[in-house]
Amino acid sequence: MYHFKNKLQSSPARNLSPINQFVSPYEECGVFGACGTLDAAAHTALGLHALQHRGQEAAGIVSCETNSDRSLSNLHHHHAIGKVGDNFGDGVIIAKLRGFSAIGHNRYSTTGGSVNAANIQPLIAELSFGALALAHNGNLTNAAIIRKKLISEGSIFRTTMDTEVVIHLMARSGKNNIKDALIEALKKIEGGYSLIVLDKDYLIGARDPYGIRPLMLGRLGDAYFLASETCAFDIIGAQHVRDIAPGEIIIIDKKKVHEQKPKKEATESLFPFPKVNPRFCIFEFVYFSRPDSQIENKDVYAVRKRMGAELSRENPIEADIVIPVPDSGVASALGYAEEAKCQFELGIIRNHYVGRTFIEPTDQIRNLGVKLKHNANRSVIEGKRVVLVDDSIVRGTTSKKIVAMVRDAGAKEVHMRIASPATTNACFYGIDTPSTEKLLASHMTTEEICKFIGADSLAYLSVDSLYRAVGEAKRNNEIPQYCDACFTGDYAVELKDKNAGLVNKGYDC
Amino acid sequence: MYHFKNKLQSSPARNLSPINQFVSPYEECGVFGACGTLDAAAHTALGLHALQHRGQEAAGIVSCETNSDRSLSNLHHHHAIGKVGDNFGDGVIIAKLRGFSAIGHNRYSTTGGSVNAANIQPLIAELSFGALALAHNGNLTNAAIIRKKLISEGSIFRTTMDTEVVIHLMARSGKNNIKDALIEALKKIEGGYSLIVLDKDYLIGARDPYGIRPLMLGRLGDAYFLASETCAFDIIGAQHVRDIAPGEIIIIDKKKVHEQKPKKEATESLFPFPKVNPRFCIFEFVYFSRPDSQIENKDVYAVRKRMGAELSRENPIEADIVIPVPDSGVASALGYAEEAKCQFELGIIRNHYVGRTFIEPTDQIRNLGVKLKHNANRSVIEGKRVVLVDDSIVRGTTSKKIVAMVRDAGAKEVHMRIASPATTNACFYGIDTPSTEKLLASHMTTEEICKFIGADSLAYLSVDSLYRAVGEAKRNNEIPQYCDACFTGDYAVELKDKNAGLVNKGYDC
Amino acid sequence: MYHFKNKLQSSPARNLSPINQFVSPYEECGVFGACGTLDAAAHTALGLHALQHRGQEAAGIVSCETNSDRSLSNLHHHHAIGKVGDNFGDGVIIAKLRGFSAIGHNRYSTTGGSVNAANIQPLIAELSFGALALAHNGNLTNAAIIRKKLISEGSIFRTTMDTEVVIHLMARSGKNNIKDALIEALKKIEGGYSLIVLDKDYLIGARDPYGIRPLMLGRLGDAYFLASETCAFDIIGAQHVRDIAPGEIIIIDKKKVHEQKPKKEATESLFPFPKVNPRFCIFEFVYFSRPDSQIENKDVYAVRKRMGAELSRENPIEADIVIPVPDSGVASALGYAEEAKCQFELGIIRNHYVGRTFIEPTDQIRNLGVKLKHNANRSVIEGKRVVLVDDSIVRGTTSKKIVAMVRDAGAKEVHMRIASPATTNACFYGIDTPSTEKLLASHMTTEEICKFIGADSLAYLSVDSLYRAVGEAKRNNEIPQYCDACFTGDYAVELKDKNAGLVNKGYDC
Amino acid sequence: MYHFKNKLQSSPARNLSPINQFVSPYEECGVFGACGTLDAAAHTALGLHALQHRGQEAAGIVSCETNSDRSLSNLHHHHAIGKVGDNFGDGVIIAKLRGFSAIGHNRYSTTGGSVNAANIQPLIAELSFGALALAHNGNLTNAAIIRKKLISEGSIFRTTMDTEVVIHLMARSGKNNIKDALIEALKKIEGGYSLIVLDKDYLIGARDPYGIRPLMLGRLGDAYFLASETCAFDIIGAQHVRDIAPGEIIIIDKKKVHEQKPKKEATESLFPFPKVNPRFCIFEFVYFSRPDSQIENKDVYAVRKRMGAELSRENPIEADIVIPVPDSGVASALGYAEEAKCQFELGIIRNHYVGRTFIEPTDQIRNLGVKLKHNANRSVIEGKRVVLVDDSIVRGTTSKKIVAMVRDAGAKEVHMRIASPATTNACFYGIDTPSTEKLLASHMTTEEICKFIGADSLAYLSVDSLYRAVGEAKRNNEIPQYCDACFTGDYAVELKDKNAGLVNKGYDC
Repeated sequence: MYHFKNKLQSSPARNLSPINQFVSPYEECGVFGACGTLDAAAHTALGLHALQHRGQEAAGIVSCETNSDRSLSNLHHHHAIGKVGDNFGDGVIIAKLRGFSAIGHNRYSTTGGSVNAANIQPLIAELSFGALALAHNGNLTNAAIIRKKLISEGSIFRTTMDTEVVIHLMARSGKNNIKDALIEALKKIEGGYSLIVLDKDYLIGARDPYGIRPLMLGRLGDAYFLASETCAFDIIGAQHVRDIAPGEIIIIDKKKVHEQKPKKEATESLFPFPKVNPRFCIFEFVYFSRPDSQIENKDVYAVRKRMGAELSRENPIEADIVIPVPDSGVASALGYAEEAKCQFELGIIRNHYVGRTFIEPTDQIRNLGVKLKHNANRSVIEGKRVVLVDDSIVRGTTSKKIVAMVRDAGAKEVHMRIASPATTNACFYGIDTPSTEKLLASHMTTEEICKFIGADSLAYLSVDSLYRAVGEAKRNNEIPQYCDACFTGDYAVELKDKNAGLVNKGYDC
Repeated sequence: MYHFKNKLQSSPARNLSPINQFVSPYEECGVFGACGTLDAAAHTALGLHALQHRGQEAAGIVSCETNSDRSLSNLHHHHAIGKVGDNFGDGVIIAKLRGFSAIGHNRYSTTGGSVNAANIQPLIAELSFGALALAHNGNLTNAAIIRKKLISEGSIFRTTMDTEVVIHLMARSGKNNIKDALIEALKKIEGGYSLIVLDKDYLIGARDPYGIRPLMLGRLGDAYFLASETCAFDIIGAQHVRDIAPGEIIIIDKKKVHEQKPKKEATESLFPFPKVNPRFCIFEFVYFSRPDSQIENKDVYAVRKRMGAELSRENPIEADIVIPVPDSGVASALGYAEEAKCQFELGIIRNHYVGRTFIEPTDQIRNLGVKLKHNANRSVIEGKRVVLVDDSIVRGTTSKKIVAMVRDAGAKEVHMRIASPATTNACFYGIDTPSTEKLLASHMTTEEICKFIGADSLAYLSVDSLYRAVGEAKRNNEIPQYCDACFTGDYAVELKDKNAGLVNKGYDC
Repeated sequence: MYHFKNKLQSSPARNLSPINQFVSPYEECGVFGACGTLDAAAHTALGLHALQHRGQEAAGIVSCETNSDRSLSNLHHHHAIGKVGDNFGDGVIIAKLRGFSAIGHNRYSTTGGSVNAANIQPLIAELSFGALALAHNGNLTNAAIIRKKLISEGSIFRTTMDTEVVIHLMARSGKNNIKDALIEALKKIEGGYSLIVLDKDYLIGARDPYGIRPLMLGRLGDAYFLASETCAFDIIGAQHVRDIAPGEIIIIDKKKVHEQKPKKEATESLFPFPKVNPRFCIFEFVYFSRPDSQIENKDVYAVRKRMGAELSRENPIEADIVIPVPDSGVASALGYAEEAKCQFELGIIRNHYVGRTFIEPTDQIRNLGVKLKHNANRSVIEGKRVVLVDDSIVRGTTSKKIVAMVRDAGAKEVHMRIASPATTNACFYGIDTPSTEKLLASHMTTEEICKFIGADSLAYLSVDSLYRAVGEAKRNNEIPQYCDACFTGDYAVELKDKNAGLVNKGYDC
Repeated sequence: MYHFKNKLQSSPARNLSPINQFVSPYEECGVFGACGTLDAAAHTALGLHALQHRGQEAAGIVSCETNSDRSLSNLHHHHAIGKVGDNFGDGVIIAKLRGFSAIGHNRYSTTGGSVNAANIQPLIAELSFGALALAHNGNLTNAAIIRKKLISEGSIFRTTMDTEVVIHLMARSGKNNIKDALIEALKKIEGGYSLIVLDKDYLIGARDPYGIRPLMLGRLGDAYFLASETCAFDIIGAQHVRDIAPGEIIIIDKKKVHEQKPKKEATESLFPFPKVNPRFCIFEFVYFSRPDSQIENKDVYAVRKRMGAELSRENPIEADIVIPVPDSGVASALGYAEEAKCQFELGIIRNHYVGRTFIEPTDQIRNLGVKLKHNANRSVIEGKRVVLVDDSIVRGTTSKKIVAMVRDAGAKEVHMRIASPATTNACFYGIDTPSTEKLLASHMTTEEICKFIGADSLAYLSVDSLYRAVGEAKRNNEIPQYCDACFTGDYAVELKDKNAGLVNKGYDC
């Protein structure tokens, strides 16, 4: 690696280093669970493949055999750095993950470094009532406080993940079954999370009281599935039954599934928390979820098109063509162009081939050139007044390069339109944003950002317009309908670790 | 693998096997050459990355040091199965490919099996005047005849590639330099080809007399580049100087480049063949080239949009939405929707994450499900009359599944529109199509195909409309302006091997 | 794999399967620690390489930086399945294992399967007083009992290793430093063990009260080392200072080492256990330790030669040549031949090249042919009366095949002589023997075994002669000087888990 | 790698780099062929495993199906860098190497660098009479001259191996079958070689007229085998039929084997060369062959013991113990000790675990420490007068380190005894020795070498004694019975390439 760098440093073309094909400016995690089929692991691999956009650095699957003991050896598992297709496509591995049920997890890269094998989920542990596996999407806001307390009481921590706290709380719950132990643990943790837990007897899904992170229930024949997004059901031909409700713990009784008991008997729903007003993560609509997924029975693609349309209404500009930054800006650009009655063009082409070495999730690499991933379509752009539509601006470095690329291709004017409000605050509930001070909009005005990225004009979607796009009349400032902390700083759940000055390094995803 | 298959066979969900993410129904090759920079190999790796869509199975780079001897050890090379980014992104490998010039090659999978390491190009050989490397995009139509003759005269063949014939002809040319030897060799071969040859003294590019396959000249500072498409220049920031002309042999004199002689002195063009009417491959516009490339100074994206517009004019249908089969149908669907003034929607979402094991280029696997790659967007499609736009239909199996998927998503009607004429004949000039008898349109009427794929209606673009889209008034049936044999059966170059009953297994790309 | 098997089953030569190069019938573990050099990890890699014979399946190294925090991220670690030389020879990995101190571990294969990455030591955990790493050679005889209790109290277990118990006991000790916490934990565990523990402040070694497993102290300049055997000091040029005493906890104060305090100040010895009569594992002399190691200041090679001499005295036989089963029988065969004044010959040649696939530690494979590893030297053997000397007989299958091989090579008579008593009992203190019922001598008389292996005669060394070889007059049956349970069934430490009917699956090594 | 080096350079213990476990000071190649069993490839893998000592860097196997066509695709092949066991133990690969016959090759590392995949044998080519594969042990002394001529006539060379010349000569022989073509080719080449050639019809073995390199015929049931050494027959349970004679071409008719024709009909022997006095390579006895192999019906182990005995008679010295440098000096040390009636001891222990990274065949690495491979047994050596027996001295660097190691272990005197004459001349017939000027004995007297390696005395075996050990009365200086050029400079075959000043880089093995 260094050789190459050294070489390039001494060469006249040093900025051509083949890097920066880093897939996503934001990252999260994806979870999947299957119960009731001998293909549980194969279905989980397919489900994780469909959820690959939620985390590309590593994946793990744990399966569980039904008619065997409660020890750790009843759990079969495989964890691997890399893509699902690269590590779980192989039938030999799937065949080893025997059992009638399985859970899986896609993770994004850990902050400031590559994934450590120990940090790949699902986590596995043996507790008094038997071995279990747990997969987690989200972040706990009081994990560091609890961790500190648990360690002082003699718990040992093997990873830097906040997920580990949940298992310890279950272990120390004094309960003799997974259901009660999980409820006890959840009563102590705070934050945004979706959890999937598996043991010999149950497959359990749980969403935090505010329902910040998504979790869905699916079904195919007698088998049940849990997933972060509905697109994971589509790939296996399963039906989307419903979203798990905020604060709901759904318990799938493996024995009853095995006996093919009717649906209502095989699943059970508990609501152990005091009722609060839900605040689902609005950023899932803006960026994270796949456009072919449905959340809260709303089609993500349609919501994004409406964001584009609202953006056009709110920030009209005289232009010749509307160009999306692919792939994240495509749907909103389509909505923008339709509303603006302006020509939609694929003026930037994305190269989807990604190489191993290019994925180096360090700040340094994120800042390098965009050419490996994007190329401008000169004939479309030349001499035109261009509206460039993207979902958001994080550090601004990519936007700056894309604006320059579009100008190099001959654009007469470049007007940047962002299909969400300015990202001013870091997320503490499961989306891996840069820290607040690294977010361009946290310390620059829109005008300054416009200048920084080199655009002729820049406009963001207003918060109310964003709410309109998701189907609300406007934001209810008393009781906000969504978690929009990244745009407003109005955090749904108190940031206890942060306020206590504790480093919560291990934010998982 | 088999374990998995066995397992799935005995399971109720046996058709969920995680395969069929095969990237492309057609395949070809990509070539790149660089001369005049110490980053020659790094530039070549980037160029091949930009050309990855032309061949994903394997890649090779050969570099050449200028001030050293003429022996084989003066050529540094690395050949690897897999993607460019996975194998050449690593700086350690690039650092070993020392030298002021380099050439590279992307290859698609060989017919009926995975790539054999020996068949990865560029080929390397030591001839009387020194070691050379050669990369080839295209197919020779008389390679088997020549091979047979050469073998009878004592030449030995190590691979099944027709490219090997060219090197033998050079070796037996009796000439004492690479330029004369190449000309002698080219006089004997026929077919569609673009060649890049490198030795200690020269970087040479050559196109067949009809110019069937593409080859471009680029420049950055004092360095010259050759590439199959202009997008390979964009990625390194080089300028597209011009297309190499049909029948042209362009010779870049490394010594003069090194001395930074003015451009006209460093390159030399020879036209050793009798003049014929050029017939560039029209399928490069239809499918193969990247939309951000320019060929014959025409923008591929714009041509495709015009194909869509022509398609709409020629085959209008009452519908609610126009949906592309991504990614190949997107540009033509945009053109179609604009012309038809019908709503354009991304009704099918493509998952770009590809796994190693999924790429198994056997017939069996190509026929399996499409869900790993495509998913329908129910909310967009439900209750709608859909126009589905794709670039072409090969065996019809994918189209059949996509039509079914769109119907499952609630489409009221599904009208398939193909932005090119019916593919009735196999290509013998470098595109890896199935053999003629496997092409659906070779033995079915449009009506039969429509029924086979389950659409409510099906229409193809006419040949004349295709010609209009590329800028001609219509096809000149006396002297066709393009090679359109796949649509018309009118082969530009005589198929001598085929007519002699010789198996030309080794069609390279 | 299966293809091959299937193929061989249908072939006339089905018993030629290329397997059974399994390195050792017994297995254990090796531990190493380094403190006081910036090359701590490199020294540890070399030490583990010298200890490779103690465990070939996996290895791990954890290093610790001195001037940094107490969190988990202060520990750098690399764990890998395979040989030390294959995984830690690479300087890139060593360079990442920064720090002034490091510990490492070689492990043998887990019972009945290949190593799981989670089970590779050293273990790492964050406790209230900071992060630590622990490496363990030995087995705890009450681990299952403690584990059960800890789990009921809310501890969570991630592995099947008994080593994990030690860390939990430390965590729950209520002590606020690694020294006190370790002492508390050791007071609760029983069995045979050598432990090496590392944190920010200390490198600590500990041996069980009976001193069943070995542990040595070494020194090079200002740096200190701990290792299972002295050969690990030789490879790095360090001096063997002394054996750690039974029941001793030796504490190396990293800060004082750093300040280059005189030796007596930098190390501290604690003896927290009630005094018992030591019983070092006599099998380390028989088989396990390297012949160039010193234990209790006795040269292993010399002890083995004396075993051979005793064997000859005790069981004389008229013969022409003495042949060792290489490599384990070589030293005792030399001793036998000298004493018997009989010709020593290398009548069996060992092939030391071992392949990955051959190492499949299942019973099935252990029982297959010996030809991949051993070959008879016909010219030496033909027509001769042969004394065949080996260290021990386990299941008898290998002995049977070697006797047959020697007969096939033309031996007139084959007299098997075993340089230790009959192995009648499984080890529960860290050597991975088969369970008692699988040991041939547990249910067969010497005569029956002789018949089973096909020898003309068979004799074992008596227990008293073995004691003579290690320098005792005879075994003190009141207070045995060594742990010889595998030969006598007289277990040094009570087998509490076994007696409680608890499966102690996780015997580490 | 470099990181490590950098690190070590700045550390106080910089000479501890974990390298120099280079397996052998000399290297050669091994060949194997099988015909008449469906397990041909499996047998070849086992045979190559037994011949692993002849070349550890890479291996290849080519199999051939009987009832299929003559094209290249009838040959199945797998070539891999690394050990046989690591690359061919896996049944999946063997299963792909279908066919009734197969040949294989082990190669040592190429001079000055790691193996290039293109240089792994067997070579494969398509000639006028069909596809064939060829494996070669030895070196051709006029390959460069022929290569130059062939290139000038239009042959193209893909590798730097002299083996490629043989195939070109066959191709240009004008013959229409493999037998005649091979004879024509052999008439033109000179040097020391054993060749195995395979095509659809025949398995052929050939030895050079002087029989410098070994080749053996084996049989198991109806199947025939060819191998460099008899130990390759032992591993598969085949009988050693006889040595192929010098100048013999043995042709195994696959069709007749298939029909189970009696042996005499299925094989045919040709002697196309003028008769010369054979001169087998005496160094095969000294070092190269495995001690359990038979050559010329002489047991290699027995010959080596006689060398040791002769050495003792010729160079007696008062001493306490005789210690071999393992493994190459063991047999001769045994012979020495017996003859000298001096105590034989394993005073140096060898660590057989070899790591990938340690095998870096560069001069630099060969010169580093020996500790990774060897360790002295202090208790055996301390205070003793030691005779150290090794097979030969090449550059002297290893000997120097071993003498120092023995002294460090407390030896009172160290007397080095070499069981062969001083190595004064490079080999040009297939053994990869350093060039003449790098051989210590080429420019130093025995006295100087003794001083260089730091021994108290040094003695070599005389040439006549060496001849006595192999069963001759003495060397016949008129018509030497063996090739002993490395000791005498009397080259059996004229060194035409060398004399013509041509670099014969490609000496294969």
